[in-house]
Amino acid sequence: MPVETIRWSDGQLTIIDQTQLPGTHTRITLANIDDVWGAIKQLKVRGAPAIGVCAAFGVVVALKARVNDLQNVAAATQEAADYLATSRPTAVNLFWALDRMRRRAESLPPSSTCEEGLAALEKEAVAIFEEDRALCRAIGEHGAALIEEGAGILTHCNAGALATSDYGTALATMYVAADRGRQFHVYADETRPLLQGARLTAWELTDAGIPVTVICDNMAAQVMREGRISMVIVGADRIAANGDVANKIGTYGLAVLAKAHGIPFYVAAPSSTFDLSIQSGEDIPIEQRDAEEVRNGFGRRTAPEAADVYNPAFDVTPAELIAGIVTEHGILIPPYTESIQRHLAE
Amino acid sequence: MPVETIRWSDGQLTIIDQTQLPGTHTRITLANIDDVWGAIKQLKVRGAPAIGVCAAFGVVVALKARVNDLQNVAAATQEAADYLATSRPTAVNLFWALDRMRRRAESLPPSSTCEEGLAALEKEAVAIFEEDRALCRAIGEHGAALIEEGAGILTHCNAGALATSDYGTALATMYVAADRGRQFHVYADETRPLLQGARLTAWELTDAGIPVTVICDNMAAQVMREGRISMVIVGADRIAANGDVANKIGTYGLAVLAKAHGIPFYVAAPSSTFDLSIQSGEDIPIEQRDAEEVRNGFGRRTAPEAADVYNPAFDVTPAELIAGIVTEHGILIPPYTESIQRHLAE
Repeated sequence: MPVETIRWSDGQLTIIDQTQLPGTHTRITLANIDDVWGAIKQLKVRGAPAIGVCAAFGVVVALKARVNDLQNVAAATQEAADYLATSRPTAVNLFWALDRMRRRAESLPPSSTCEEGLAALEKEAVAIFEEDRALCRAIGEHGAALIEEGAGILTHCNAGALATSDYGTALATMYVAADRGRQFHVYADETRPLLQGARLTAWELTDAGIPVTVICDNMAAQVMREGRISMVIVGADRIAANGDVANKIGTYGLAVLAKAHGIPFYVAAPSSTFDLSIQSGEDIPIEQRDAEEVRNGFGRRTAPEAADVYNPAFDVTPAELIAGIVTEHGILIPPYTESIQRHLAE
Repeated sequence: MPVETIRWSDGQLTIIDQTQLPGTHTRITLANIDDVWGAIKQLKVRGAPAIGVCAAFGVVVALKARVNDLQNVAAATQEAADYLATSRPTAVNLFWALDRMRRRAESLPPSSTCEEGLAALEKEAVAIFEEDRALCRAIGEHGAALIEEGAGILTHCNAGALATSDYGTALATMYVAADRGRQFHVYADETRPLLQGARLTAWELTDAGIPVTVICDNMAAQVMREGRISMVIVGADRIAANGDVANKIGTYGLAVLAKAHGIPFYVAAPSSTFDLSIQSGEDIPIEQRDAEEVRNGFGRRTAPEAADVYNPAFDVTPAELIAGIVTEHGILIPPYTESIQRHLAE
C-alpha cells in the first residue's frame, strides 16, 4: 500500500509535508484555510489531482471553522474558494475542484440549515477524493497487465501516490502489479532540476516495499543498453488529439532512447488529460521556468551566474513513440487520433 | 583565451582551485610537495592531463625546497614521485608524468651538480607542460574546421582548459574557432552527478567570452528537437581499437539522441587515448561510484537512504554513432578499425 498523501478523518485534514521528503516523513494538520492555502502555495502538497482534493477539503475546513456564525453557506463557500484559488494560479485541477464545491453550495435547497449545507459540502469533497481514488485504481488495474514477471521499469518524475489521493497514475500500474504478487524492479530518473524522481518516487516506492533504484537522468540510456529495462511508463500533463503527450522535461528524450533500444514506452493518465482542442503537440507552448532552479537548486551555486540557463518545464513526446496510453477505461493504442476519439465518445 | 589552470612562473607553481568554482575564482600557490599532493587528492586540480603536469611540477617544487641539503637528485626525485603517486591511485596520466620525471633524473650524468640536476628536471616538467599545450592547440586547430558560422554546439562534462594545461580537447575546437572570429553558441549539459558541465565548462567558456547556456542533462533531446544544436562534441577517457569511446556517463545517450535528430556527434582526444589492447567497448569494465554522489551530492539529501542507487562513472559509445574523432594529427572517420591503425602507425 502506498502512503496516504491526503487524509480526511474525523473532520480533520492532514497531509504529508512533501517539502520535507525524502529526509523526513511528517504528517501535518491543515487546521484552517490559511494552512491549506499555504500548503498548496509552498508545494507541501503537489500534483494536479492531489491539489484539487486538498482544496476541496480546504473549503470544508474553512466552513467548519465558522460553523457558529455561519449565515450563508453558499457565500462562505464562494469566499473560501476564491481565496484558495489564489494559491497556485495556473493549476487547472485546483479551479475544477473549487468550482465543483461552489456549484454544490449553490444547489443547496434554500431551506437547508447550516449543518445540512456543511454536511453536503463535506460529502462533495469526499466524493472528489473517492473519484480520484477510483480513477487511480482503474488506471492501475488496466496498466498492471503490462508489467511482466521480472520486469525492469523505468519511470520519470513523480506520477504516483504523492501526486494523487491514492495509487497515482504511472505508479498505480506498479502498486496494482505488486498487489497481485508480481515481482519487478523500478528505475527512477532523478528528474532534474527539481528531483521529483529521486525525492518523491523513490521515497514512496521504497515506503511501499517496491524495489527501486535511483539513477541520474543521463544514465537512462546506459541502463537500457545493459538490458535492465523492459518497459518505460510515465504520467502526462496534457495529451493532444493526435496522441502527442506533454509531460515533465526529459520524457521526450526517454521515449527516443526507448525506441532506439526496442523498449515499449507507455503513458498513464486519466481521460481528463486529453485536450481535443489541441490538434498536436506543436500547438502546446513550452513553459520556461526560473534559471535559478538549475543554477542554484540545492542551496548551493552549481553554475556561474553569468552563464545562460535554458529551463523548459516540459517537453512533447510525439505519438509515434508511444506504445500505449493507459487510462481508467483501458489501454489506447495507435492510431491515436481514432482511438482517443472513440475512447472519449464512450 | 581560456583560463590558465596551471601556471609555472618564476619557479612558482600556482593553480586555479577548482573546488571553489563556479562561486569563486581563486588562484592558489602550491608552495611545497604537501600542497601539491593535497591539491590533486582534493580535486583542486582535475582532468588527466592537468594532473600529470601538476605532479611533474610538484617534483620540482619538492627538489627546490631541499636545494640546500640536496645530496642525490635522482633519489630525491624518486622519493617525491613515490609520494605524489599516492595522491590519486588510479590516474594513469599522473603515473606517466612522474615516471618521465624519474627517468630524467636517472639519466643525469654522474658528474652533474645539484643545480644542474634541478635545472634539467624543471626543463622536463616544462616540456611535459608545453607538449600538453601543443596537443590541445593541434586538436583545436583540426576540430575548429568542424564548427560552422552560427553553429549550436552541445558538449558534456568538462573536456576543456580546466582539465588540461591549455585549450582542452573538445573545448579546444571552440577556443580555436573563437580565435578565428567564428560566432557560435554552446550548450553545456550540467552532467550529473558531479556537475562538471555546469560548474566548470560553463564557467571557463563564460570566462573566455564564449556564449554558453547550461541545460540539465534531460533537456538535451528537447534542445536538439528545437533545432538549436548543429553538432555534439565531447572528450574521451579511452578509445578501443574499433573506435568505441568510453567517456563520462551520459555520453552514450547523447550520441543516440544526436543520431535520432540527424546531428553529427564528434569526439576530441589526444592519440594517447587510443588503447589498442582493447578490441571493442564491450571489454571496458564500467566503474561504479559511490551512491552518496547521487543521494547527497549537494550537501542535502536528495534521495531516500533506503533506495538503491546505480552510479556508473562512464559509458561506452559505439563507433557507429560517431561521425569523427579529432586528434592532434587530424580527424579520423569511419571505418575506425582501419583509420585508427593507420593513424597510430604514422
